[in-house]
Amino acid sequence: MPSHAIKPSVKHNTNSNTVKTLRRLINAPSVTPDDAGTIDYLAERLATLGFEYTHLDCNGVRNLVAWREFGPGPVMAFAGHVDVVPANPQGWVAHPFAAAVIDDVIYGRGAADMKGGVAAMLSATEYLCERAQQCQGTLFWLITSDEEGEAEYGSKIMAEYLAQQAIVLDACLVGEPTSHQQVGDTIKNGRRGAISGRIQISGKAGHVAYPEQTINAAHIAGELVNELANISWWKDVLGSQTSLQVTGLTVPDIVDNLVPASCEITFNVRYSHAYKSQEIYQIVAQALAPWHDNVTVQWERPCESYYTGGRGSACFLNLVEQAILRVRGQFPALSTAGGTSDGRFFASSETQVIECGVKNDSIHQVNEHVSVADLHAIEEIYRAILCDYFVV
Amino acid sequence: MPSHAIKPSVKHNTNSNTVKTLRRLINAPSVTPDDAGTIDYLAERLATLGFEYTHLDCNGVRNLVAWREFGPGPVMAFAGHVDVVPANPQGWVAHPFAAAVIDDVIYGRGAADMKGGVAAMLSATEYLCERAQQCQGTLFWLITSDEEGEAEYGSKIMAEYLAQQAIVLDACLVGEPTSHQQVGDTIKNGRRGAISGRIQISGKAGHVAYPEQTINAAHIAGELVNELANISWWKDVLGSQTSLQVTGLTVPDIVDNLVPASCEITFNVRYSHAYKSQEIYQIVAQALAPWHDNVTVQWERPCESYYTGGRGSACFLNLVEQAILRVRGQFPALSTAGGTSDGRFFASSETQVIECGVKNDSIHQVNEHVSVADLHAIEEIYRAILCDYFVV
Repeated sequence: MPSHAIKPSVKHNTNSNTVKTLRRLINAPSVTPDDAGTIDYLAERLATLGFEYTHLDCNGVRNLVAWREFGPGPVMAFAGHVDVVPANPQGWVAHPFAAAVIDDVIYGRGAADMKGGVAAMLSATEYLCERAQQCQGTLFWLITSDEEGEAEYGSKIMAEYLAQQAIVLDACLVGEPTSHQQVGDTIKNGRRGAISGRIQISGKAGHVAYPEQTINAAHIAGELVNELANISWWKDVLGSQTSLQVTGLTVPDIVDNLVPASCEITFNVRYSHAYKSQEIYQIVAQALAPWHDNVTVQWERPCESYYTGGRGSACFLNLVEQAILRVRGQFPALSTAGGTSDGRFFASSETQVIECGVKNDSIHQVNEHVSVADLHAIEEIYRAILCDYFVV
Repeated sequence: MPSHAIKPSVKHNTNSNTVKTLRRLINAPSVTPDDAGTIDYLAERLATLGFEYTHLDCNGVRNLVAWREFGPGPVMAFAGHVDVVPANPQGWVAHPFAAAVIDDVIYGRGAADMKGGVAAMLSATEYLCERAQQCQGTLFWLITSDEEGEAEYGSKIMAEYLAQQAIVLDACLVGEPTSHQQVGDTIKNGRRGAISGRIQISGKAGHVAYPEQTINAAHIAGELVNELANISWWKDVLGSQTSLQVTGLTVPDIVDNLVPASCEITFNVRYSHAYKSQEIYQIVAQALAPWHDNVTVQWERPCESYYTGGRGSACFLNLVEQAILRVRGQFPALSTAGGTSDGRFFASSETQVIECGVKNDSIHQVNEHVSVADLHAIEEIYRAILCDYFVV
């Protein structure tokens, strides 16, 4: 048990600082990549807590890198985003950017994904800074306004900046909503990779009455789809499956009596951390090899997989699990399911990334929300993690 | 050798009655289904030769059924069409409806397909009628203005009319252009059938990250295409192959991260006379059976196959072959290749259909043409066939 005490939960205080911060953030209609002022707001709040910061703005995306060095020691980061997906007010109990509090629940776009997490991180950081004299190590904040979009100029840019500065994160906590029934019941210790591909098939057109003079691109497509759908992903590990799904088939300019000369296949691969993108390229290329004269493939939107395993009792995964056990009374389930996240940009053999946040059942939907109780619960978890990490 | 004499060929007479008739027909821009006056013109010409006739006009299509009974005996028909495919004057040596004669060649839309055949049939019919007192049997003319289109209201309507009148054709000569290098070198004694199909695949949409909750319509399409492309058409006979070609694949509304819920496959079957359309339906249905929960198929534009085999020395095929041998000095090659023709509407177990006409190398193209020599050659063949059939 660490020397610092965990305060009892402050629940249902709809006027807490964390609630105020969250409502302030929701009020800013920061639809990707517009930060709508939230980046400057956070920079100022962190500055008052003794943080230094720099802006890495790029192609309309705003990125905030802030840090406070308490002393020598390990480096941990809070990572997250202030941008949200669009919200059509239709069907909402209140305007999606009004941050209405109804029956101890805060409604608004981004309440769960992930302005709630950001607000809780800020309160937890304040709590830590009040104990700065007991701390060692450095805490980074890495916040972008482009996570919900293509993420080309967001966390990736910040990760590159850190590398240029020779800053190595030992641990990174991403505040994405990961919980299911209860806050803290599930955390992500990795994500599958994702990549899209586009195959162009070139055959030879001709009249259907004389097929011997043609090369039917649609017939080749049939063979390719079968081949792709039946690739054996034998390296997969329990709980993280690789899957290739064909998402589109298009023969352009279909004519009833014409053998088609071209066909496009689009597909998406979600791959377990047992694979890296280079292996996916090779495996797919191998599957297509018999048709190499008639086929070209183009890769799009690669998102690398990552995985943070247990590394003995001193590892970050273990620290997060223990913090959650202490605050919530039970261990979290570990998951690598779902889509991709910005965690992939920070994960490396040196940096352990864990995602932990509020419930994700309302994200991207009408009436996205977080309860005040859940907001304070995640704040408490973040506090415990920070204290376990920095307080000596 | 029949009692009547075959006159020596009249070649290169660019002012013959046959050339005049053909030029008159080409001058009428009878693009499907417009007959542009050609049906009335032919009716009048035939009436002067002692023919009775009736018009079977239907949905903008004009059909002419004319007949002359020389006496009791077998019934033969000349069948054909006066409609042509459209012609853009660009690139033509003369306007496509001007019927220009240049260097003993008649240029114009329909010159080969098949106003040349119709003009030659008319001259041959005149020749026969001059010998009417030596003839037995009945000659029909069956001419439509809708062969190049959907053919829904053309020869089909005339065949139905004949059936209603209890008129059974023993033989039918279709004047379509069938020759390759030389007039009479190839005749068609059958055509493959044709039919199009449209398969709708219904799966279950979902995010690519959770494929276990989806049914990927594109993956089913891949399996179906393979199945369809590899059907074994074991009943096929030498020289007439059945072929199924997938003509289109369409996943509507492709989204990069979405497993598609629907996919459409279009295909076309060209089938040998070893099959009838009902068998094609059954064979394809059998191939699709494993996916019956997710698949519906819709059939479009069926064109039945037909075949006229040898039936001993008295058969019509034999008569046509012998006539061509006598006029041209060699037997024609038999073929059932290429697209469909109106022959299918008249062929039956009682009616032997043969297609025989001029060269088909310029049909549907810029500068469609027939040489005066070829026009007179086919006229001579038609004369020989008529005389062998009717003159006793």
